[in-house]
Amino acid sequence: MAKRLAPLLNRVLVEKIVPPSKTSAGILLPEKTAQLNSGKVVAVGPGARNRDGQLVPVSVKEGDTVLLPEYGGTEVKLGDKEYHLYRDDDILGTLHD
Amino acid sequence: MAKRLAPLLNRVLVEKIVPPSKTSAGILLPEKTAQLNSGKVVAVGPGARNRDGQLVPVSVKEGDTVLLPEYGGTEVKLGDKEYHLYRDDDILGTLHD
Amino acid sequence: MAKRLAPLLNRVLVEKIVPPSKTSAGILLPEKTAQLNSGKVVAVGPGARNRDGQLVPVSVKEGDTVLLPEYGGTEVKLGDKEYHLYRDDDILGTLHD
Amino acid sequence: MAKRLAPLLNRVLVEKIVPPSKTSAGILLPEKTAQLNSGKVVAVGPGARNRDGQLVPVSVKEGDTVLLPEYGGTEVKLGDKEYHLYRDDDILGTLHD
Amino acid sequence: MAKRLAPLLNRVLVEKIVPPSKTSAGILLPEKTAQLNSGKVVAVGPGARNRDGQLVPVSVKEGDTVLLPEYGGTEVKLGDKEYHLYRDDDILGTLHD
Amino acid sequence: MAKRLAPLLNRVLVEKIVPPSKTSAGILLPEKTAQLNSGKVVAVGPGARNRDGQLVPVSVKEGDTVLLPEYGGTEVKLGDKEYHLYRDDDILGTLHD
Amino acid sequence: MAKRLAPLLNRVLVEKIVPPSKTSAGILLPEKTAQLNSGKVVAVGPGARNRDGQLVPVSVKEGDTVLLPEYGGTEVKLGDKEYHLYRDDDILGTLHD
Repeated sequence: MAKRLAPLLNRVLVEKIVPPSKTSAGILLPEKTAQLNSGKVVAVGPGARNRDGQLVPVSVKEGDTVLLPEYGGTEVKLGDKEYHLYRDDDILGTLHD
Repeated sequence: MAKRLAPLLNRVLVEKIVPPSKTSAGILLPEKTAQLNSGKVVAVGPGARNRDGQLVPVSVKEGDTVLLPEYGGTEVKLGDKEYHLYRDDDILGTLHD
Repeated sequence: MAKRLAPLLNRVLVEKIVPPSKTSAGILLPEKTAQLNSGKVVAVGPGARNRDGQLVPVSVKEGDTVLLPEYGGTEVKLGDKEYHLYRDDDILGTLHD
Repeated sequence: MAKRLAPLLNRVLVEKIVPPSKTSAGILLPEKTAQLNSGKVVAVGPGARNRDGQLVPVSVKEGDTVLLPEYGGTEVKLGDKEYHLYRDDDILGTLHD
Repeated sequence: MAKRLAPLLNRVLVEKIVPPSKTSAGILLPEKTAQLNSGKVVAVGPGARNRDGQLVPVSVKEGDTVLLPEYGGTEVKLGDKEYHLYRDDDILGTLHD
Repeated sequence: MAKRLAPLLNRVLVEKIVPPSKTSAGILLPEKTAQLNSGKVVAVGPGARNRDGQLVPVSVKEGDTVLLPEYGGTEVKLGDKEYHLYRDDDILGTLHD
Repeated sequence: MAKRLAPLLNRVLVEKIVPPSKTSAGILLPEKTAQLNSGKVVAVGPGARNRDGQLVPVSVKEGDTVLLPEYGGTEVKLGDKEYHLYRDDDILGTLHD
């Protein structure tokens, strides 16, 4: 059985969104639609500590769709699935429809 | 449909201004007029946190025309359009008529 | 007799978990199951000091199963057993069933 | 029409002083008189923020003649004129007659 | 006569423990038992100063057996004996039976 | 006419002392007497700002004879004379008869 | 006449102790006795400033015999004598009989 990971400090566990390379009707999509580097937040840490030792909560929450930097992040495998850990302040923004 | 990006921390989403290479009357402009590296602010983050963990608002607001540094900024594609993300303190100034 | 190590500051003593390469029934497991870099916390330091000189407790406790970074950590041998020392903030997260 | 630039944070917009290479009477000046790297302050930002997030005003004001460092500064073109942006703390001093 | 060294700030004077290469009965020990890099604390400084200029006491005390990092430390000779100076925060932990 | 320079922040304007290579009686001095790298303070800035944005006055005053570091300092020409700008904390000490 | 140097900030002026290479009876000493890199404190600065701009006094005083780091320190010649300037926190400890 896959273990569950609770990130520490301001780390954020993200499952990257693999864009469909075909539409549901089977039409091959051009490469351009695949370029947005985004993911879904699976779990967040309690936050990093400031100079006084107090926790500063992270800026995203479980379920958020986030824009990720091109480089960075630590690959983590839990069971069959592949995730990535990012520091809260490396996540560029949240994506909304 | 293009997604909307809400930048995190002190990030600023900018749409670069591509200077017209011709006047509306069709006269080709000399290269010099194209040199100002400016953009329009599309969205701003809530601000970075200071040492006490409090948010310090960014210096620009949506709709501002800003002078951008020659290097830096992260390219972001939302739908068909291309944007750039800058840290608030990398933006050089605001431009006014 | 093996000595006991009490880590200083925010150091965490970890015994790495060596995944079984065979099932209890003797079936050789494929390499993929061995990839999670985890360990068991054996001892924790009192915490690092913040700017005011006060101790900030570490984020993990004895007995926690933790996800470790791919690089880093100091190898320590106590008696026959091999352990690793990590700084509290280098530990990626805690693992739960 | 040339745009006006309002610098952000502790940036200072400077118009460099090009020393005359001839006297008004047409006598060619020796190279030595051209060596002082100075400029006139055209606009200043509101100041950088200290650790508490409060603005610390810049040390120079519009109209000041300043001594500039040999290297550094960002070239900015507004209309036909060329300016330079410096961080407040890179400006060496103010010049007085 | 050998001089006595009073370490400054958060420095710790350590006499390294050279493990016996033979048992008291004269049996040659295998190399593995020599690998623990430990020492005895001979003297400690008053502590480093925090941002407010106040002394933060060191984490170890005279007589402690400590685990030392593989690299670092300054060799000091006092009389015939050889000691090492470490910064308090470079010492990995204390060893107990 | 030479301009006067008012240094900014914690900068100190120094006129280097060129040691006489001959005595007043015309005797050539050996090289050793020329080795002290000293200067006379001509003007000082108001001081650098601490973390709270308050000015911390510089440690030297106009007229002080100071010992200068071997490297560093910015050459400044005012009229015919050559000066050097140093950061207050780069000046090694004050010299007294 | 030799000038007197008053060190600035947390600088410490030290006269290095050159160990005798012969005993008073003329016996040549082996090289080992010369290895302790020590000196006598000749003058100390008022101390460095902490974040609030307040002076933090240095840890040594005039007349102290100090253990010096192997590298570092600025050579200063005052009259015929050679001294070294160290930052207070580079001095390893004080030596006592």
